[in-house]
Amino acid sequence: MNNFTLHTRLHTEFVNIDNQVQEIVSASGCKEGIVHVYIPHTTAGITINENADPDVVADIETVLNRLVPWKAGYAHCEGNAAAHVKASLMGATATVIIHEGRLALGTWQSLYFCEFDGPRTRKVWIKIIPS
Amino acid sequence: MNNFTLHTRLHTEFVNIDNQVQEIVSASGCKEGIVHVYIPHTTAGITINENADPDVVADIETVLNRLVPWKAGYAHCEGNAAAHVKASLMGATATVIIHEGRLALGTWQSLYFCEFDGPRTRKVWIKIIPS
Amino acid sequence: MNNFTLHTRLHTEFVNIDNQVQEIVSASGCKEGIVHVYIPHTTAGITINENADPDVVADIETVLNRLVPWKAGYAHCEGNAAAHVKASLMGATATVIIHEGRLALGTWQSLYFCEFDGPRTRKVWIKIIPS
Repeated sequence: MNNFTLHTRLHTEFVNIDNQVQEIVSASGCKEGIVHVYIPHTTAGITINENADPDVVADIETVLNRLVPWKAGYAHCEGNAAAHVKASLMGATATVIIHEGRLALGTWQSLYFCEFDGPRTRKVWIKIIPS
Repeated sequence: MNNFTLHTRLHTEFVNIDNQVQEIVSASGCKEGIVHVYIPHTTAGITINENADPDVVADIETVLNRLVPWKAGYAHCEGNAAAHVKASLMGATATVIIHEGRLALGTWQSLYFCEFDGPRTRKVWIKIIPS
Repeated sequence: MNNFTLHTRLHTEFVNIDNQVQEIVSASGCKEGIVHVYIPHTTAGITINENADPDVVADIETVLNRLVPWKAGYAHCEGNAAAHVKASLMGATATVIIHEGRLALGTWQSLYFCEFDGPRTRKVWIKIIPS
């Protein structure tokens, strides 16, 4: 298992992590298989979406904030229940195909770490499965 | 492929399944790899979220019930369309890294079976892929 | 890595892709493992849900359209921000167990390609990992 650390700077922030995942794949020497990207946190998630226009991830953040407002009479006493809910809506994992040693992402796709209760120091765990 | 059965007791209920999945991983002897946890139902899902405060999963249930009310003029004739929609929002699968023979979950994370149309007897399917 | 092409005909459309995925699994000769199904687009997704009553996926489409309306003051200039958001809510990937050479789907389950900005010609990428 490999991992890397990232530092989020905002309360809600989608961070492109393509380069960090590709570096681990390249260092592994794996040419064909899958890479499993795992977020070991409960107030953050991961998604795959467009990297060309940063407004796309901003719109995802906006919709999630509208659907799951920060204050809405939640039971959880720590005050960050909305971050937990958004983490489950985006999910904690993403699996990407490795082809010819590279992450096989679509033309417009990137992997985004989804911070929902930052700023914080976060970990991403990586497992490579050769095929 | 391995599997286990669980019995949900409520209409909407998130059930911690860490122990059942770990038992199957331990029995397999796999030390490094991934375990794929698959829900073969269409009115239930799976998510990874906080296990310390049970209010967290209660809040997820509450938000999902607000976003997808049980009655809202759905087309599906069986009356449980909301359960199907919530199943797709949470997803039917979770993949967790196996490290040193253990499920590699974050400090506060657990795997939750998400019942959206209980009580029922349910199955969980497991596939272990060594790395 | 394998792939296939599909042509969606509507703006929002859930297309059953079980047969295409099973054909690739059968041709591979893999009897036990997992098949990773990957959508390389940012305005489409994938989900697993009921195939018996087509109203179920129609209800999922309806709820997603209500939660994420097509026009809602989005920042993304191309006018299809809602499609991107729905893609992230459903997710870009699904992993299914292969057992005895067959996709191990639940009795009522099928794999659905989720078109959110059609009609378009789309690709689905497939990676098989034997266990």
